[in-house]
Amino acid sequence: MRIMGIDPGIAIVGYGVVDRRGNQLKAVDYGSIQTPAKTATSTRLKQIYDASTALFARYRPDVVAIEKLFFNRNVTTAFDVGQARGVLTLAAEEAGAVITEYTPMEVKMAVVGYGGAQKKQVQEMVKMLLTLPEIPRPDDVADALGVAICQAHSTTFTDRIDTRGWKR
Amino acid sequence: MRIMGIDPGIAIVGYGVVDRRGNQLKAVDYGSIQTPAKTATSTRLKQIYDASTALFARYRPDVVAIEKLFFNRNVTTAFDVGQARGVLTLAAEEAGAVITEYTPMEVKMAVVGYGGAQKKQVQEMVKMLLTLPEIPRPDDVADALGVAICQAHSTTFTDRIDTRGWKR
Repeated sequence: MRIMGIDPGIAIVGYGVVDRRGNQLKAVDYGSIQTPAKTATSTRLKQIYDASTALFARYRPDVVAIEKLFFNRNVTTAFDVGQARGVLTLAAEEAGAVITEYTPMEVKMAVVGYGGAQKKQVQEMVKMLLTLPEIPRPDDVADALGVAICQAHSTTFTDRIDTRGWKR
Repeated sequence: MRIMGIDPGIAIVGYGVVDRRGNQLKAVDYGSIQTPAKTATSTRLKQIYDASTALFARYRPDVVAIEKLFFNRNVTTAFDVGQARGVLTLAAEEAGAVITEYTPMEVKMAVVGYGGAQKKQVQEMVKMLLTLPEIPRPDDVADALGVAICQAHSTTFTDRIDTRGWKR
């Protein structure tokens, strides 16, 4: 089963592609989509949509797991991230992937085993679990891989996809 | 010049197509895109994207004016509206339209002449300015027409589009 984890944003979208065979996890690819700051939002949204559509076509993930953001930040940020997330979700839907979402706390629980874990701990565990040479940069990429690992460890996943008739 | 005003949302997207000839305004069409509540958000976003893409192809607006929401509401709402707005902006960008945005206060100023106007006053003015038989329903449709009128009255519009080389 192939999972693509995504950490959405308007300036940087982190992504991480992970294959799961039984209990084995393998990082297939990871990186980021970045859009220039002094550009119209509509242009940035189209860049994110086009780049993510290309990534979905290349890696054909069975599941796209998207980080669900905390809302104790300011509302304008939530709105901007929401716009980016909208086009990412659209691209995933058009690619026929099952779409799931996890909060940062769920990701920490799944990756470190403790919902209050520090960012650095999550990054170290991501590196270890996927036997990477180093912690991926920027943070958004490590976060995206964390979301993918969270999806891979999800026990409820089989139930979810069964309701949509998906099997592998 | 043809303007499409949009009031974005995940459940209801209001739209209003208005033609401007000199100082004359004419409502070409108006209505709403509605998505069922008990449906995955990804599905609803795709429905909004597909329906708006079809509307842009049918009416070919020169300008798409989108309502910019107030952020004193709760953050979850801002996030949901943000997602819907993301795919609407993407569709408008792909259709090659100039994209602008106006706050509810700017719309009230342009339509009623007073930024603190009541919703009902705006709706009555929309009906009168476009010589409609009655106030369009639901509210989102009247709001979208209000945004279109605001765009039509915008004095800065010519400047904006000139910077992008657009003429008509």
